[in-house]
Amino acid sequence: MKKINIALCGVGNVGSSFIDLLFTSREKIKSNFDIEINLTLIGSRKGEIANNDFQGQIERDILKVPLHKDIDIVVELIGGTDISYELAKLALENNKHFVTANKALIAEKGPELFKLASKQSLHIGFEASVGGGIPIIRTLRDGLISNKINWFKGILNGTSNYILSKMYLEDQTYEDALKSAQELGFAEPDPTFDIDGTDSSQKTAILSFLSFNGEVSPLKIYKEGIDKIESLDLEYGKELGFSIKPLSIGVNNKDELFLGTFPSFIKKHEILANVNFETNVIEINSANLNSTAYQGPGAGGYPTSTSVINDILDIAKGKIFDYSNLLNPIEISDFDAFKTSRYLRLMVTDEPGVVAEISKLIAEKGLSIDNLIQKENKNQENIIPIIIVLGECSEKISKSLIHDLEKLSQVREPVQHIRFID
Amino acid sequence: MKKINIALCGVGNVGSSFIDLLFTSREKIKSNFDIEINLTLIGSRKGEIANNDFQGQIERDILKVPLHKDIDIVVELIGGTDISYELAKLALENNKHFVTANKALIAEKGPELFKLASKQSLHIGFEASVGGGIPIIRTLRDGLISNKINWFKGILNGTSNYILSKMYLEDQTYEDALKSAQELGFAEPDPTFDIDGTDSSQKTAILSFLSFNGEVSPLKIYKEGIDKIESLDLEYGKELGFSIKPLSIGVNNKDELFLGTFPSFIKKHEILANVNFETNVIEINSANLNSTAYQGPGAGGYPTSTSVINDILDIAKGKIFDYSNLLNPIEISDFDAFKTSRYLRLMVTDEPGVVAEISKLIAEKGLSIDNLIQKENKNQENIIPIIIVLGECSEKISKSLIHDLEKLSQVREPVQHIRFID
Repeated sequence: MKKINIALCGVGNVGSSFIDLLFTSREKIKSNFDIEINLTLIGSRKGEIANNDFQGQIERDILKVPLHKDIDIVVELIGGTDISYELAKLALENNKHFVTANKALIAEKGPELFKLASKQSLHIGFEASVGGGIPIIRTLRDGLISNKINWFKGILNGTSNYILSKMYLEDQTYEDALKSAQELGFAEPDPTFDIDGTDSSQKTAILSFLSFNGEVSPLKIYKEGIDKIESLDLEYGKELGFSIKPLSIGVNNKDELFLGTFPSFIKKHEILANVNFETNVIEINSANLNSTAYQGPGAGGYPTSTSVINDILDIAKGKIFDYSNLLNPIEISDFDAFKTSRYLRLMVTDEPGVVAEISKLIAEKGLSIDNLIQKENKNQENIIPIIIVLGECSEKISKSLIHDLEKLSQVREPVQHIRFID
Repeated sequence: MKKINIALCGVGNVGSSFIDLLFTSREKIKSNFDIEINLTLIGSRKGEIANNDFQGQIERDILKVPLHKDIDIVVELIGGTDISYELAKLALENNKHFVTANKALIAEKGPELFKLASKQSLHIGFEASVGGGIPIIRTLRDGLISNKINWFKGILNGTSNYILSKMYLEDQTYEDALKSAQELGFAEPDPTFDIDGTDSSQKTAILSFLSFNGEVSPLKIYKEGIDKIESLDLEYGKELGFSIKPLSIGVNNKDELFLGTFPSFIKKHEILANVNFETNVIEINSANLNSTAYQGPGAGGYPTSTSVINDILDIAKGKIFDYSNLLNPIEISDFDAFKTSRYLRLMVTDEPGVVAEISKLIAEKGLSIDNLIQKENKNQENIIPIIIVLGECSEKISKSLIHDLEKLSQVREPVQHIRFID
């Protein structure tokens, strides 16, 4: 029987679930793997430990946890990039493996930590940092490594997916959907990082690192939040046969590499279009496998803890992966060159000649109109929506078009712009 | 650099793809894992090796392959359970690891081979045996082992899914859909094992073994083929809001364990309902993760070979898993006790009182009718279809009902019976 001693730092929601899960699965792990995981130390400034099975020590100075001699692995379930970053460095410097669910830490400090771990032949486990309970990190690392990845598409933020699903499937307003997400615990009291794309961009950076084998800062990910989406757009999208999803994409075409996260229209029959509410999904297209997709709970105490335990088991089994080998220099393309077809919604004064003026501007840019639908006025007097489906064009040219359209006197509100992603 | 020597037996479609993939991915494997895979020997009775990069030896007597001294792993891509079974035993007896894509072999002879491998601390890799390129075996083994699996549902046979998708989405007849599958190479010239559920039952047995940790013979899997499905049923299913899929299920409820493979109606918005044509998918529901789903190409040379290479890499990395630990005694429930709601289609003489007689029979069995729709006669004079959606009831009682219904003089054809699976 192999014995491994771990220290847990952080006993919030995820930390408490982790303790429970560890004690309930210990026997199964022993009998299937011949491995005994001992939680000998918990680092927590003031948190109480509710689980009575825990008989170990409690360390109130978290940064002293890595100094304890009999620990093999430090598990970090605190979050943020302040104390958790110090903790990670101290753990590695003191010859402890490090396991975390912290996407911000891995996205921002991963490269530095991976190099530090490599020097000491230590392992950093971060399966729980993307897709919660979905085993996507090990799949990319172990299952697809002999493969060239062409692109990935994912729904990586459960809060955003929940809100857009509520709006799309149940005709809720953005505000009601957000409130319901907060009541159910899918959204934080301050949901900014979920809604503005920050959380997704960190996860996109981690997936990009594993998919394209290079250092990717989350700041390099093009980012748009879901808060600009209106019910009107969902209604028109539905009519056109599209669902809306908070997508994260990494697309590797020849010499181009586009990384971004933004709400997108996708065809209703596509697999991602049917992944609703808080569920996450990652679809990966690779040279030899075509598309594979992985779907499951993207957050929550037990799913996250399942991934953390799997990382611990990897280390116990001697599966040490040197992620610093994947830190190659790669060039991320300027998102301005990203091409796709686009949905524009213009709110215009209902007067003769307006469609002609708009069409003229589009033609002048050399762009094609795949569809133009003039809608009925619903609320505002004398203002009508015009929906335009633009053929494939770059970000740059569409921005310039939108700029010109907004200068037209008949265009009364900022132009809504949503990408179609195939 | 760790070096590992492999011998490949079988150079058909999958074997040839494997050779190609191995040579094109060698450099990436070297740089990412520090592992060199050398294909030093090919066993093939008379096949030609098209790839010019292969510089090794050819052994025309396949059963002599495991006797070669410098081989670490024997890779079997022959199929069937005759020579491949002999080869597996010889490989293990001669201290070679064994990697295969052969579901029949693992489903039928797995337990014996796992015990043999365990004695010698050898590994048997069979990632490619279920779900082709989908990394489902490693996910069940590594990712979910600290977890109790409640159920799995899968589409495991690409041919059946292709045929039913063509019928459902493109209104093709069964015969035309089968012909198109054969032309595209998704169905064998003799498609019996794909269509009658044999292939799916073998894969179901393997997933059940890994999910419920017990020895499961494919003969214990309840099995129905897709050849009884008629276009009429798909049309009515569509009206009711259901798609039809060749499902394989393993359901573990308290003291019951139901294993089966049969065409099923599933709600249109469910994830499995949107996995079409030759694509496979496996959805797993577990205590701590709720549902996760894994989707991808279920067959084909490159997807299958990708899984085979991942198995080889596991062995090279020292990841030896003793599957004999999972061979616990488990009891599989009699499928007669399986409860679900059901679709019945009766072709009856169009005369007064027929619905009353049918309803009476159903009431006598204590069963509830959720829906009864009398359809218009389309082709046959004076014969009309009646669709009945039965509330949840066991196989046993539904069989007895069908038996009684077929004795009614007004019922002119065998009753069609399709399960609804939630």
